[in-house]
Amino acid sequence: MGLIVQKFGGTSVANAERIFNVARIITDEYNKGNNVVAVVSAQGDTTDDLIAKAQEINPDASKREMDMLLSSGEQISISLLAMAIEKLGYPVISLLGWQAGFVTDSTHSNARIKRIDTDRLFNEIGKKNIVIVAGFQGLNRYDDISTLGRGGSDTSAVAIAAALKADCCQIFTDVDGVYTADPRKVPNAKKLDEITFDEMLELATLGAQVLHNRSVEMAKKYNVDLEVRSSLENVPGTKVKEVAKLEKMLIKGVAKDTDCARIAITKVPDTPGIAFKIFSKLAQKKINVDIILQSIGHDGKKDIAFTVPKSQGKLAVEILKDSLNFNDETEIKLDENVAKISVVGAGMETHPGVASKMFEAMFESNINIQMISTSEIKISVLIDLKDADRAVVAVHDKFIK
Amino acid sequence: MGLIVQKFGGTSVANAERIFNVARIITDEYNKGNNVVAVVSAQGDTTDDLIAKAQEINPDASKREMDMLLSSGEQISISLLAMAIEKLGYPVISLLGWQAGFVTDSTHSNARIKRIDTDRLFNEIGKKNIVIVAGFQGLNRYDDISTLGRGGSDTSAVAIAAALKADCCQIFTDVDGVYTADPRKVPNAKKLDEITFDEMLELATLGAQVLHNRSVEMAKKYNVDLEVRSSLENVPGTKVKEVAKLEKMLIKGVAKDTDCARIAITKVPDTPGIAFKIFSKLAQKKINVDIILQSIGHDGKKDIAFTVPKSQGKLAVEILKDSLNFNDETEIKLDENVAKISVVGAGMETHPGVASKMFEAMFESNINIQMISTSEIKISVLIDLKDADRAVVAVHDKFIK
Repeated sequence: MGLIVQKFGGTSVANAERIFNVARIITDEYNKGNNVVAVVSAQGDTTDDLIAKAQEINPDASKREMDMLLSSGEQISISLLAMAIEKLGYPVISLLGWQAGFVTDSTHSNARIKRIDTDRLFNEIGKKNIVIVAGFQGLNRYDDISTLGRGGSDTSAVAIAAALKADCCQIFTDVDGVYTADPRKVPNAKKLDEITFDEMLELATLGAQVLHNRSVEMAKKYNVDLEVRSSLENVPGTKVKEVAKLEKMLIKGVAKDTDCARIAITKVPDTPGIAFKIFSKLAQKKINVDIILQSIGHDGKKDIAFTVPKSQGKLAVEILKDSLNFNDETEIKLDENVAKISVVGAGMETHPGVASKMFEAMFESNINIQMISTSEIKISVLIDLKDADRAVVAVHDKFIK
Repeated sequence: MGLIVQKFGGTSVANAERIFNVARIITDEYNKGNNVVAVVSAQGDTTDDLIAKAQEINPDASKREMDMLLSSGEQISISLLAMAIEKLGYPVISLLGWQAGFVTDSTHSNARIKRIDTDRLFNEIGKKNIVIVAGFQGLNRYDDISTLGRGGSDTSAVAIAAALKADCCQIFTDVDGVYTADPRKVPNAKKLDEITFDEMLELATLGAQVLHNRSVEMAKKYNVDLEVRSSLENVPGTKVKEVAKLEKMLIKGVAKDTDCARIAITKVPDTPGIAFKIFSKLAQKKINVDIILQSIGHDGKKDIAFTVPKSQGKLAVEILKDSLNFNDETEIKLDENVAKISVVGAGMETHPGVASKMFEAMFESNINIQMISTSEIKISVLIDLKDADRAVVAVHDKFIK
């Protein structure tokens, strides 16, 4: 007899029919003799509808009141799901974040889980209740409701699995696992049986959007075995764990990230400390800098280019213009029409051919590479936004057949 | 500087425009230098929509999960109202029932308030925050959310006013006070400046629907001055208090109650204890019996008739048939097409003419009286349902000009 944590997203509980579908997945697991804790998001568009209501009244509403408002969404979905499970004849109880013991810090709308007081959870499990927990929410030290920000329900599920030392944390979604690329865009995309936390993190960060990276980070930290599965059909999904079994595929995935902008500073005086000055100013304002490229200087000048999230591009340019005394020659350019294409795979650092194979794919497709960045398990290139989808297919087909 | 508790119902916060209207009423009071605690119901049809969602999934859902579901309604309205008050530039905080300290018994869907732990309320008031409290809800000893049942937000407001020793509890509604009869049905209906708790209780119980009787009972018990006012126009309402000033009007109101059914048991053996047997059986099953009429017996037989709430009529008949051994002659009849018309006024016990004046009004309108019941401040008659609206006008015009 084990303990399984299951997580269901908003589309999985969007209407009565889907709620019963989820109720059956949960009770099937319970029928195997397992204890089940299910973490649920708000129904379908509930959160967006609530945000629209708030916008109409006060676009600058405090985050404290936004959290109060938005957390009602999961309150509705957990009680409806519990009612469906009651209807199927099983013992069940729904718990809000604070009832399930989620204690967070005080950063409203983007809170971090500090701990889970598990007394009530264990108490309900001990009574053989199926426990339905509201994802995305907790309580801070002032007894105010907090929410965890984007992907919060995944994080809630992993945190409960860690706190209860569950045997597995199953993330149910509308796809049946993690693919080597977006299957809607890349016809040859293949489902992975297993993937490591680190590989998943790179894919999540790069916009694969199956699992939020905070939840994967937490799973890695507490060594919680994850499984990404379909809530629509009962087929094996993708297991995410510390060590994945070796597969023939060198590359676990190709990801596209269009949320980036490129800033180029040309003809910067080539003096010591200039890079430090630039990036410390940006760090002070919490601008996330990703790929950095610096030209070899000549004539006492050099060029520096880097990428930032698209939403921070204009701000970054302003900061640089305001805070640095460049000479008249220096220019700062912002290009928002760029995309980052990455290949991810834990084995690649021992296979020197990966980078060249990737560049070959780009060359064959006549796609210009603006910047290159490599890590132990990832190679990324920055290209023109209009070439992004073509590039993913080209790179994917080069590595995965 | 005083402390005012204000209560706003669901129609008062049904959309953004009305929410800002309420926000202005609250901040106007705050601008006078008063502390304000506002108790709010769920928006417009929210509760009905949530009930419909639950019905679709499980018509027999547990009351515990229904309370979890329904209490989300006030969570939405309090946060939206707080955002509107933020927009107007005032310090404000919204609190759920449990955050405001409402401790209830464990009767889900119809819980009673046991106490209010006022620490947080006083703390927020001390910070000069306007406090917006979710009505209708509390927390039981198991840390589960409970709801107070019909009219619960009125009760929440009165309970807070009592616990905080507020100077006044203002109940805002879509009418501008308590009338001598339903103004939509009786053109001559007059607004009362003042009314006593006892008179209000009789009117509330009799279906005047301005204030729920539990809230009036609580106001009487803790001597909380109430005022029923309009949320739509700023005019004086009706004050409800222990002693009302003497008015020229003998009668404070005429009420119609159509939620009643009449049960007649004919030719019952005229033996001692028969009435006891009948009504103790009904009491055991929690049937609320109202007017009772017993004929003078002859030939060793008598007739007994009484009224019960319409929803309990069929059940009451079954209980009597199952549990009492009547002889073959005895018949039990149920009539659901009846209405109770009552005149209410604290002064009437010293004015012997009231009853005859009422009967005269019925006679003049050619309406047959089936049963009569009198108390110190009330005279009620049971009549045919189809005559009810005519009867109210006739009686009202007889007493109030």
